Amino acid sequence: MGPHPTVAAIRLAVRRVLHDVLAASADVSTAPSPATADAAGPLVLAACSGGADSMALAAALAFEAPRLGVRAGAVTVDHGLQSGSDRRAQEVVERLRALGLDPVEAIGVTVGRQSATPAHGGAYVGTAGTGTGRRVGPEAAARDARYAALDAVAERRGAAAVLLGHTRDDQAETVLLGLARGSGTRSLSGMAAVSGAGGRYRRPFLLLDRDTVRQGCLAQGITVWEDPHNHDPAYTRSRVRHEALPVLEKSLGKGVVQALARTAQLSRDDADALDQWAADAQADAAGDDGSLDVARLHGLPAAVRRRVLRRAAVAAGSPPGFLFARHIEEVDRLVTGWRGQKALNLPGGVAVRRADGRLVFSPS
Amino acid sequence: MGPHPTVAAIRLAVRRVLHDVLAASADVSTAPSPATADAAGPLVLAACSGGADSMALAAALAFEAPRLGVRAGAVTVDHGLQSGSDRRAQEVVERLRALGLDPVEAIGVTVGRQSATPAHGGAYVGTAGTGTGRRVGPEAAARDARYAALDAVAERRGAAAVLLGHTRDDQAETVLLGLARGSGTRSLSGMAAVSGAGGRYRRPFLLLDRDTVRQGCLAQGITVWEDPHNHDPAYTRSRVRHEALPVLEKSLGKGVVQALARTAQLSRDDADALDQWAADAQADAAGDDGSLDVARLHGLPAAVRRRVLRRAAVAAGSPPGFLFARHIEEVDRLVTGWRGQKALNLPGGVAVRRADGRLVFSPS
Repeated sequence: MGPHPTVAAIRLAVRRVLHDVLAASADVSTAPSPATADAAGPLVLAACSGGADSMALAAALAFEAPRLGVRAGAVTVDHGLQSGSDRRAQEVVERLRALGLDPVEAIGVTVGRQSATPAHGGAYVGTAGTGTGRRVGPEAAARDARYAALDAVAERRGAAAVLLGHTRDDQAETVLLGLARGSGTRSLSGMAAVSGAGGRYRRPFLLLDRDTVRQGCLAQGITVWEDPHNHDPAYTRSRVRHEALPVLEKSLGKGVVQALARTAQLSRDDADALDQWAADAQADAAGDDGSLDVARLHGLPAAVRRRVLRRAAVAAGSPPGFLFARHIEEVDRLVTGWRGQKALNLPGGVAVRRADGRLVFSPS
Repeated sequence: MGPHPTVAAIRLAVRRVLHDVLAASADVSTAPSPATADAAGPLVLAACSGGADSMALAAALAFEAPRLGVRAGAVTVDHGLQSGSDRRAQEVVERLRALGLDPVEAIGVTVGRQSATPAHGGAYVGTAGTGTGRRVGPEAAARDARYAALDAVAERRGAAAVLLGHTRDDQAETVLLGLARGSGTRSLSGMAAVSGAGGRYRRPFLLLDRDTVRQGCLAQGITVWEDPHNHDPAYTRSRVRHEALPVLEKSLGKGVVQALARTAQLSRDDADALDQWAADAQADAAGDDGSLDVARLHGLPAAVRRRVLRRAAVAAGSPPGFLFARHIEEVDRLVTGWRGQKALNLPGGVAVRRADGRLVFSPS
C-alpha cells in the first residue's frame, strides 16, 4: 500500500524540486563552495518554523533526498518575539533531527527594536533596518531578518538550495497584500517558485493547497506547532487569512485562492516581460551620462516609459522604496506634458531636468 | 456662494470630459452623422438608471453642457426584470426632462430568456446571447444588452458621446470581479475612462468616490431610485459591494478602493503595452499563410509568446471566450516542449500543428 494521497502529492512536489536542484548543480562547473562538491551530493535545507506546512516539507525532504543522492538538512529561525521561543526552537530542532535530517540548526534573529535571546547553537546574523531604502513594517522587518539568517546559514553550510513551505494559500494571501498596495503588476506577482541569489530559495508547495499539506501531516502523525501570530489579528496577513479570504470565497466563489495564485503567475510573467522591454528601451534612450533622449521616450507605451523613468531615477540614486507613482508621474510630465517646467527633486537627493531634448538625472 | 463642494467636484469631472469630447469632435473632419453637425453643437447623452450616481451625472451634464455649447440628452434602459419597470423608466424620463435634458428616451431590452414589456417610447433593440463566442452569465447578458441598446440610441440620435456614471467604487468592484476570474492583467484593468466604438463611452466619475457623488445628489435635492438588484445577494457584484469590500477594508486598511482603482489603471497600461508587443511580434513571426516561425516565438518572453499564440488562434477562428489558459499552454508546449506532439484541437474547430519549424493553424 502506497502513502496517503496527500503524502504522495507532497513528496512528488519536493521530488520535482530536488530533480531541478540536481540538474542546476550539474550545470555549475565550479561548485559554489567546497561543501557542495562533497561526494555525498549537494546539501538541501528545509526552512522550518515547526508549523504544519514546513514540517510536512521537512518530512518529505527527509524521505526523498536519500533516494536522489541529496543530503538533507534543516534550519529553524527563532525571531525571539515570544518568551520561551528559544526553547521552542530547540524542540523543533529535535523533531527535525528525529526525521533523519542532518545538519539541523536553530538560528536567532533580532527584528527592529525587539531584543531576543539567541537560540541554542545560533547567533544573531540578521538585523532588519531601513538602511536598504525600503520602508518596512514589523512583518516585512521580520521577513528581511529571516532571509538574511537563512542566507547566512546556506552560505556557511554550502547548501545548494533552501526549501520554503509556502502553499498556494500563502500565495493567494501575498497577492491580496500586494493588491492592497495598489502598485501594479509586480506587486501582484506574489512569491516566485525560484528566487534569491543563484535561485537558492525554492517553494515546492506553491501549487498545493494548505489543506492538502495539513492532511499530509496528520496522515504521517507529524507533531506540529501552530505559531500564535498566524491567528493574531494584529498582523495583516492573519486578518487576510482569517477574515478577507473566507469572505472573498463567499462573495466570489470557491475558486478565489486558485484565481489569486494564477494571477500571481501571470502577473510575474507580465512584469518580467515589461522589465525586459524597459531595460532595452533604457539602453536605447540613454547617453553615456545616463541622460535619456526625450523623443525616444515619447514613442514608448506609457507602461514602459514609466518603468524606464523609474529605472533611471533608481540608477541615479533614488531609493526604490521611497519612489512613488506620483514621483514618476511628475517626471513623465517632463516628457509628455512639457511646458518648460523647472527641475524636479526626487527622494534621495536626485534632481531631474529636461534640457536639449534630454532628461538629465543628477544630484540635487 | 458656490455650489456644495461635492457638486463642484461632480461638475468639474463632467466639464473635463465635455472639453475632451469637444476637442475630439473638432478633430473629426467628417461628422459621424448629420445630427452631430447641428449648429447647436454636438449631442452628449447621459446613460441613467435613475440611481444616485447616474442622476448626479445627468444633473451635472444638464448644468455644464449649455455653458460649453453642447446639447445634453439622456437615455434610460428598461431591462424589464421587475414588474412595473416600464412605469419606473417613464418616471426616470420625466425626472431627466425636468433637469432640462432633451432629447430623453427610455429604451427596453430583453435579456436572455426573460421577457419584458417595452418601455414607453422604446423598442427592443438589444438582445443578449452567446452568439458572440463569449460565455455570459445573467449579469454579463444584461450588460451586453444594455450597451447594444445604448449604441443603437447613440447612432440613431447621432450622439458624440454617452456618459456613464461609474464611480471609483464601481471600478474597485470590477477589479475584484476580474481578480476572481484569475485570467491576468487585462482582467484586472477594470473599466476604461474612454471606451467603445470611436471612444463613444466616457466615465467622468471613475476617479470620484461613490460617497462624493451621493452627497452631491443630496446637496441638490435630486430624487433618486435605488435599484433593488444593488442589494440583492443573488448578484455577485452586490455581494462584492456589501460583503467583500467592507471586509477587505477592515483587513487591509481604508485605502483598498483607491488601491484597486490604481491597480485598474496600471494593469490597463501594462496590458496595452504587452498587446502592442504581441501584435508586433506576431507580424514579425507570421508568414503569408499566418503560420508562425517557431524560432522567433522561442526568443520571446513567455508573457508575449502566449499572447501571440492566443492572437493567432483567434485569427484562425477560435472564439476568444472559449479559449482558456490551458489551451494556450498546450500550444506553447509545441514551441517550448517539442517532442514530436501531434496536432492539437482548439475550440471552434481550429487545429494547430508544428511542421518545418513553423506553427500552422488550420481548420481541424
